[in-house]
Amino acid sequence: MGTISEKIFSRASGTNAAANDFVSANVDYAMAHDGTSVLAVKSFREMGAEKVWDSERIVIPFDHLIPASTDVAAGLQKDIREWVREQKISHFYEGGEGICHQVLPEQGFALPGKLIVGADSHSCTYGAFGAFGTGVGATDMAEIFATGKLWFKVPETIKMTVDGALNDGVYAKDLTLYLIGKTGIAGATYKAVEFYGDAIADLSISGRMTLCNMAIEMGAKAGIVPPDEKTFEYLKNRSQADFEPIYADADASYCREVSYHADDIEPQIACPHEVDNVVPVGKVAGTHIDQAFLGTCTNGRLEDLEIAADILKGKKVAVRTIAAPASRTILLETVSNGVYEILVKAGVSFITPGCGPCLGAHQGIIAEGENCISTANRNFKGRMGKGGFIYLASPASVAAAALKGEIVDPREYL
Amino acid sequence: MGTISEKIFSRASGTNAAANDFVSANVDYAMAHDGTSVLAVKSFREMGAEKVWDSERIVIPFDHLIPASTDVAAGLQKDIREWVREQKISHFYEGGEGICHQVLPEQGFALPGKLIVGADSHSCTYGAFGAFGTGVGATDMAEIFATGKLWFKVPETIKMTVDGALNDGVYAKDLTLYLIGKTGIAGATYKAVEFYGDAIADLSISGRMTLCNMAIEMGAKAGIVPPDEKTFEYLKNRSQADFEPIYADADASYCREVSYHADDIEPQIACPHEVDNVVPVGKVAGTHIDQAFLGTCTNGRLEDLEIAADILKGKKVAVRTIAAPASRTILLETVSNGVYEILVKAGVSFITPGCGPCLGAHQGIIAEGENCISTANRNFKGRMGKGGFIYLASPASVAAAALKGEIVDPREYL
Repeated sequence: MGTISEKIFSRASGTNAAANDFVSANVDYAMAHDGTSVLAVKSFREMGAEKVWDSERIVIPFDHLIPASTDVAAGLQKDIREWVREQKISHFYEGGEGICHQVLPEQGFALPGKLIVGADSHSCTYGAFGAFGTGVGATDMAEIFATGKLWFKVPETIKMTVDGALNDGVYAKDLTLYLIGKTGIAGATYKAVEFYGDAIADLSISGRMTLCNMAIEMGAKAGIVPPDEKTFEYLKNRSQADFEPIYADADASYCREVSYHADDIEPQIACPHEVDNVVPVGKVAGTHIDQAFLGTCTNGRLEDLEIAADILKGKKVAVRTIAAPASRTILLETVSNGVYEILVKAGVSFITPGCGPCLGAHQGIIAEGENCISTANRNFKGRMGKGGFIYLASPASVAAAALKGEIVDPREYL
Repeated sequence: MGTISEKIFSRASGTNAAANDFVSANVDYAMAHDGTSVLAVKSFREMGAEKVWDSERIVIPFDHLIPASTDVAAGLQKDIREWVREQKISHFYEGGEGICHQVLPEQGFALPGKLIVGADSHSCTYGAFGAFGTGVGATDMAEIFATGKLWFKVPETIKMTVDGALNDGVYAKDLTLYLIGKTGIAGATYKAVEFYGDAIADLSISGRMTLCNMAIEMGAKAGIVPPDEKTFEYLKNRSQADFEPIYADADASYCREVSYHADDIEPQIACPHEVDNVVPVGKVAGTHIDQAFLGTCTNGRLEDLEIAADILKGKKVAVRTIAAPASRTILLETVSNGVYEILVKAGVSFITPGCGPCLGAHQGIIAEGENCISTANRNFKGRMGKGGFIYLASPASVAAAALKGEIVDPREYL
């Protein structure tokens, strides 16, 4: 009689955990990237900890400021590489291998039923595989590094059902933005969200990652898609460990149940400066664009770049357009299938697989007053550059806007 | 009875110019990039200038801090884009099209007999095509923007002859470093260098660009290879204007004549922190490497990346390795011929075609105490990061070091 979250926390804490209980849970995998590992390692040292609890269960991908963007970043990265060697961390991924939230699934760490904690707010991405993935601060991560445990308040769960099928030209990102618009940025604060319905089941693994990646944008502690055959197929020859899929019981108790119809959804766009400031893209058509940004952990997978290539093939972008594939593996897939060449010929500038300008640290900062349309997950004021304006949309909407130099309904280009 | 430089300045100034004369010369093409255009435009405005002298003869490629690396860079780039629109500059190249010194040749601006002035010290690259290419400061560039003219002291010329043929595993970069080592960083200060001999004639256009690119590293005002069939072949269907090749007269007067033998040259490396601190690479074999850097305007062309791919094919780099192709065109060539895929599979991180970490502004800064082996053109103290050490070498030497994690004679990998 539990939700997915209650059952995962029961297993991880060895208790019969119910929503709102406080438990001390064993973490299956812990992740920190080049940005957050710095503070986590600092706290780890300050705690007087000497050895990590399990060098096989800590995953450190460098993705935020790679290749090193400043003297400070270079120095901090050097320090973390030394700590990784000293602690014999098995799963270290050098800059260029990909974004943490893509690397963990690709490398088989994002597994059904596992508790995966990342020092990054978008660690909820792993919910796409039926894991409880959640983000914590760097000092909590230090505690995990040292002990493998962390206390949690077991979240209540919202059951969110999306029936029906997505219309042509409407993608996982549109569905995601639609749900965030309906829920609000604080509508699911400290809740888990379980996603059900035909429209969710129909999503590819990549689409489910887009959806769960942005669960935090409605305030959720986790966003979880129950694992199915697609999940198991993806994990075949990839899993780092055995796993047992966990599903909600039929009589699980939800704090809220909401339903939507996929066929109600048009292409969506989140306007500045809040992720729930969502409107159908047609409402802001004609808005001038200075920069377009494809990729990231939200929408930097093969199917995302394929959608963009379908629109940009044989044409030239009208504004500067940057692409950040989510991993080296994806980059190589786009090379093999010709998508990379199509995009580069269209004028797209690829950066090294990584976070790039998403967090406004380098590789595509926008100037005061400039508008960027982006497939990433946040449009907070100043995030990509002081005084800039960010519109979040699907790869199709971003590619179409790049072509026209202004926001446009992508269905005009399909 | 003139050198190439004297004859180019005679034409450009409408005088009978001899070495050490002061002339006011008409500039054929003027170049400034995102870094230097900022100050040039500032001076242009401060001079009270309103219109540029010729909007068809100014070339502005964005290459140094692209995609925009900081808020300041983004703001300055926005300002220059506006100036470019306002002044109707025809030849503006957005970030990602390539490095200025590659873009000008590719787009047909680097033409025999022309006087090409760039607000960048490596503008001597255009000498590979028989042009007088030279770098000036941003305020001089403002003067050119306004009037199309600049005063010059016509340089004396050194005649540098390299006979014989390069050995296997020895490339244009090794020849270049060898000549800089022999000449010294101030050995050609304010001179032009004319390059002659079989070893020079045998160089590809790409190799000649490597050589002339680094003429400034011996202090030279220009480095010039007399144009030949290879030059004309490269320029076919590419030239922006008619041109007349200019050659030195048989009785031209040189301030110095030096000769070298190509077969004396082993793979060379310039050790920290001066470009003329050159030794055979074997002398520093075993030196630990933290980062390898392929590409730039010095060695980021197709043949350079092919050499690296030959060494890295089917293997994995031992240290983080960054590649900056010199242009989008070159990047697309590497995609077509499989070199890109080989390098990415080997673990190389490509950045957007541009200067990348060469000047230490972003995309691969090294930390204090770290060693970087690089195909770029300068190893000055701190250039790629405070407290870092830079070794300059050929693409083969850089690829081999990337594989081994230490400096090694690249002939071991051929």
